[in-house]
Amino acid sequence: MENNIKVSFPNSKKVYLPGQLYPEIRVGMRQVTLMPTVKVENGEKTVEKNAPVLVYDTSGPFSDADMAVDLKKGLPRMREAWIEKRGDTEILPEISSAYGRMRRDDKSLDHLRFEHIALPRRAKAGRQISQMYYAKQGIITPEMEYVAIRENMNCAELGIATDITPELVRQEIAAGRAVLPANINHPEAEPMIIGRRFLVKINTNIGNSATTSSIEEEVEKAVWSCKWGGDTLMDLSTGANIHETREWIVRNCPVPVGTVPIYQALEKVDGDVDKLDWELFRDTLIEQCEQGVDYFTIHAGVRLKNVHLAEKRLTKIVSRGGSIMSIWCKKKNKESFLYEHFDEICDILAQYDVAVSLGDGLRPGCTADASDEAQYAELDTLGELVERAWAKNVQAFIEGPGHVPMHKIRENMDRQIKSCHDAPFYTLGPLVTDIAPGYDHITSAIGAAQIGWFGTAMLCYVTPKEHLALPNKEDVRVGVVTYKIAAHAADLAKGHPGAAVRDNALSKARYDFRWNDQFNLSLDPERSKEYFLAGGHTEGEYCTMCGPNFCAAKLSHDMINCNKKD
Amino acid sequence: MENNIKVSFPNSKKVYLPGQLYPEIRVGMRQVTLMPTVKVENGEKTVEKNAPVLVYDTSGPFSDADMAVDLKKGLPRMREAWIEKRGDTEILPEISSAYGRMRRDDKSLDHLRFEHIALPRRAKAGRQISQMYYAKQGIITPEMEYVAIRENMNCAELGIATDITPELVRQEIAAGRAVLPANINHPEAEPMIIGRRFLVKINTNIGNSATTSSIEEEVEKAVWSCKWGGDTLMDLSTGANIHETREWIVRNCPVPVGTVPIYQALEKVDGDVDKLDWELFRDTLIEQCEQGVDYFTIHAGVRLKNVHLAEKRLTKIVSRGGSIMSIWCKKKNKESFLYEHFDEICDILAQYDVAVSLGDGLRPGCTADASDEAQYAELDTLGELVERAWAKNVQAFIEGPGHVPMHKIRENMDRQIKSCHDAPFYTLGPLVTDIAPGYDHITSAIGAAQIGWFGTAMLCYVTPKEHLALPNKEDVRVGVVTYKIAAHAADLAKGHPGAAVRDNALSKARYDFRWNDQFNLSLDPERSKEYFLAGGHTEGEYCTMCGPNFCAAKLSHDMINCNKKD
Repeated sequence: MENNIKVSFPNSKKVYLPGQLYPEIRVGMRQVTLMPTVKVENGEKTVEKNAPVLVYDTSGPFSDADMAVDLKKGLPRMREAWIEKRGDTEILPEISSAYGRMRRDDKSLDHLRFEHIALPRRAKAGRQISQMYYAKQGIITPEMEYVAIRENMNCAELGIATDITPELVRQEIAAGRAVLPANINHPEAEPMIIGRRFLVKINTNIGNSATTSSIEEEVEKAVWSCKWGGDTLMDLSTGANIHETREWIVRNCPVPVGTVPIYQALEKVDGDVDKLDWELFRDTLIEQCEQGVDYFTIHAGVRLKNVHLAEKRLTKIVSRGGSIMSIWCKKKNKESFLYEHFDEICDILAQYDVAVSLGDGLRPGCTADASDEAQYAELDTLGELVERAWAKNVQAFIEGPGHVPMHKIRENMDRQIKSCHDAPFYTLGPLVTDIAPGYDHITSAIGAAQIGWFGTAMLCYVTPKEHLALPNKEDVRVGVVTYKIAAHAADLAKGHPGAAVRDNALSKARYDFRWNDQFNLSLDPERSKEYFLAGGHTEGEYCTMCGPNFCAAKLSHDMINCNKKD
Repeated sequence: MENNIKVSFPNSKKVYLPGQLYPEIRVGMRQVTLMPTVKVENGEKTVEKNAPVLVYDTSGPFSDADMAVDLKKGLPRMREAWIEKRGDTEILPEISSAYGRMRRDDKSLDHLRFEHIALPRRAKAGRQISQMYYAKQGIITPEMEYVAIRENMNCAELGIATDITPELVRQEIAAGRAVLPANINHPEAEPMIIGRRFLVKINTNIGNSATTSSIEEEVEKAVWSCKWGGDTLMDLSTGANIHETREWIVRNCPVPVGTVPIYQALEKVDGDVDKLDWELFRDTLIEQCEQGVDYFTIHAGVRLKNVHLAEKRLTKIVSRGGSIMSIWCKKKNKESFLYEHFDEICDILAQYDVAVSLGDGLRPGCTADASDEAQYAELDTLGELVERAWAKNVQAFIEGPGHVPMHKIRENMDRQIKSCHDAPFYTLGPLVTDIAPGYDHITSAIGAAQIGWFGTAMLCYVTPKEHLALPNKEDVRVGVVTYKIAAHAADLAKGHPGAAVRDNALSKARYDFRWNDQFNLSLDPERSKEYFLAGGHTEGEYCTMCGPNFCAAKLSHDMINCNKKD
């Protein structure tokens, strides 16, 4: 494994903003420095400075030029001191999961193992330790102030009014309207918030299936995803060595990590659904809680009584977790153990502040199946479960579709808000048509931008390979950038404070022919510059797209100039 | 030039549907043949046939395996007999434009010239010949029946109710709510319709700038654009030999061709805006009318009194035609000659049934400038002009933005409908954020899908190279497919009759593991199959995305099977 992955963007440097309630916190952001605007009017040259622009940065220490990251040691454990200070958790003498201990003791895995595994931390007996619990008590944690600063980038610098305060963050978390994923065993993660009042977030999926890809590739993809702007990262590995791969990812991941524990549970029984049971699942949850996974997708909404509703569909069930649980219920003619044991699940999660992402196992897999009885029956169950999670102080959000034609998107959002009592919505797209495999990042970004605007808090990215194959690094990049577009479009439409700063700075650079500033402010500076240069360009007052005589920007400059002469 | 370009798609053949009012018309469509669904349940095998699916086909004779197209001779002149039969036009003894004659007589251009140029056709003195005129008279032309059949694909075959009749087409054209571009000098083009009640159409732009690209490349790009689904094609060439390039394109183009005549006018005066005048422009219009251009973008809405409104903007004027006319007005302190001579322009266009696309010279070039005074002042002028066009029986549509954040898209649509008296809207995107150069096909498809759903009749595509360079063939393909996604998403949301047939057929193929059917029904069969194969797949009941144990579709099949056993 290459030990020293660095993330860098042109004309950018890492800056840190301090807290006020907690002066010790340092919120990392990327600052893009711009060239001045040079105007020559009637032979007179004026030079106007352009303020640097702050960009939301998900790449953590990887983009700090002054910090050397050693993948073998993992990232600095930034939140450890905050957690320690609260005094409500303790370090366990050893890991609690039987499977985890078995893997630990298996010498044949030594060559795969992350070397510097810390002992796990857990709530002290009888103590509540989740961000939701603190919020309900009226406590603003350092994590909450951190995200308030993070959400307000450019506002203080440019005098933009904002209503996003640490107190608002606390209120939203207390009410269940926002989630701050923060497993006490993942102190490397930088706090971020998922909720309707905040910037729309994006999740990226990585992970191997069967025999493809190595640990090294997965860690590299994780950092790559963070470079381009992934706000959270789901490790959906279903192949070999899931346990060891996850350790490497979590230790090196500056964003919250999510998983679908049923995948690993099924791997443990060699894919035999019949052998899945609560004990196995429970041990898997504890194993992953103690490794530091920040949220679990749990398909507890797939109930025996609703499974038949999916059978009339064109594409039946397309969620992996949903299909596993459906066939389990059906074969055994028993209620799902996830539903039956949901309160116990929450008791476990609460001890580590792991959030639950209530999976939509019956999400529509084609536009024809959208908004049907199966989908909405499950949504009602998720609404019941989210209240049960909150009763245990477990942070929760709700997963959503899938494939939805545009005219049904608003209905999906409104219904989720109502059925799930304002819990954050986390959707996969939705894809607004089924006819574009190979381009489903686009098909789904069209739906994602709209549902984000309507109130969805987090968008799960889709890559060009969706429905066809696992994404490679380039697919991950395209998927993330596409979803940054959708999320940012939603932020603009929602009127998030300061969201338009970057657009306006880029547009000004475009008008000024400050080509490099235009590239550097864009979501993908490398790609935009590459396209520009491939056009045979050199920097100047036009480009090969229109040529010198037909450049509207150039003519606009001429117009302003001829104006000045009048 | 390669003489024999062919367009083909796997498992597809060209079929022709006849007219009822006009039995001689043959509406070409692509028919995709599907494999049967094979089910094995409890050891019993059942085979269920899947009906072939008709796909809207813009590739004309190029995709007819039985027809040999010789680019040097041009496409068959399908509509010539219909036009001839009406008896209201005549063939001129020679071309009317002075510039056209000069080019014709220039021997040095012989090697560039299309060989089989026909003499131009024009309305007989005092006769009205536009589709709008016929529609107002209550006449249903073959062109109108042709588009009615084309819009209803799969409806008759599958018994889907439709309200799109030849009479509806006539009514929409008569009312100005739809445009059927049909220059009598472009009889090679297959009739299509642009209007809110119909399928959302997409336009592609090709054309060279300054010294890039050859005639050969432009013709190849034109056919390429038609292959992927471009409904109309704008030739935006601004370089050398525009006249000759255009002849080659029009003669080989099965879809309507649009241009921006001011570009060529400016080339004729070597880019010197001061030298533009009405006479020069008038001759350019006639030159292009007689070559067969089906619609002209004319920026007659840029008026002297409004130009200053754009000067307060962040990116001023970003339309090439808009900036040319603005600087002309400003320098001369005179009203635009396009506005002043608009009635004469319409008199010329009416003689050939050329439609006018009223250009939005003051469209916003960044999200900050969206929906501002400059944009709406121009829109009001376009509303005035469209009524003047209709008074002359000239078909007309209205061009729209540009860059618009999502929350202002609906307002843009509603205002256009009101200000422009229901004339069709034709927008460029809109782009919903400014921060993604290199990905602006996506940024703009997000806006395009929404505005298409709200009522925009045609979407002008944007390629990944927008703002950066001229598109190459791969960019054209990606741009067209992206816009087919946006348009189709809008058709689904509008509930266009039969629009969901292709989605449902593809989704069924997906569930059935009929991989090739899935690819063949997709917008880009080659790309989707390429991605599938790159994943190391072979056809079978799962893919490398999830692997065998985690394939939801496979598990769904198992569930149905275990069901059957109960």
